[in-house]
Amino acid sequence: MADEIERKFLVVSDSWRASVTRSMKLEQGYLAQSGGVSVRVRVRDEAEAFLTLKSGGSGLVRAEYEYAIPVADARELLALCVPHIIAKRRHLVPAGEFTWEVDVFEGRHAGLVVAEIELDAADTVPDLPDWIGKEVTADPRYYNAVLAAL
Amino acid sequence: MADEIERKFLVVSDSWRASVTRSMKLEQGYLAQSGGVSVRVRVRDEAEAFLTLKSGGSGLVRAEYEYAIPVADARELLALCVPHIIAKRRHLVPAGEFTWEVDVFEGRHAGLVVAEIELDAADTVPDLPDWIGKEVTADPRYYNAVLAAL
Repeated sequence: MADEIERKFLVVSDSWRASVTRSMKLEQGYLAQSGGVSVRVRVRDEAEAFLTLKSGGSGLVRAEYEYAIPVADARELLALCVPHIIAKRRHLVPAGEFTWEVDVFEGRHAGLVVAEIELDAADTVPDLPDWIGKEVTADPRYYNAVLAAL
Repeated sequence: MADEIERKFLVVSDSWRASVTRSMKLEQGYLAQSGGVSVRVRVRDEAEAFLTLKSGGSGLVRAEYEYAIPVADARELLALCVPHIIAKRRHLVPAGEFTWEVDVFEGRHAGLVVAEIELDAADTVPDLPDWIGKEVTADPRYYNAVLAAL
């Protein structure tokens, strides 16, 4: 188990694109959510798959448990996910001492771009690049699990 | 993924105890259930742990996905389970061509004894030993996920 300390922001310009070091395709869905635990299935670049359990519905710090699983299992599990699958392209964008993950959503959420950073401590204050907009860490509308339900 | 074809019965006598070949302690809980998928954490003999996803709330045939996870993770995940943990002792009891799993519940469900067999096909008709009572395969009251909520 690792605690995950993550902050999430809207993205206000495309200038991050000049700094992308790596991009990957993510398809993910949520198998179940109750009691404050979400169970996510994710396929990365159609080549790797993970089952991820996160505790705590909201807030900055969540316990996270992640296990690699066979891609074939993940495909079957995605078919069980309710109600929708999220597809997005994730771009890694180093800026200062952090690497941002810029998620460009596809399909039903096309047009949404969100940037996340993982911090080593809840009181770490990151420098915000000029393409970063409003913080939405605590806004349930931007939880992937909520987006999957919209 | 494997389809699991399982039948479950009440147990009407103790005569199965003479045939036990192996016994193990099981502690398990349910992290989440929704959309017809249940997510189970199980620790076996305090030495091995598994995360198991099952599709389909009821019936004979369910898709099952099982992954070994670290026992330390499983202990933390059990603490997140809602609302209760099930503790039981499972005894393996060969009879004819099948091996029965006789589950003797402990804790809040002490007194309950249930026997299960896994079949290779939904139309296989097993011989029923004389200690087997009423079939409860389709009775939600005997689902472990339901017992965990009682």
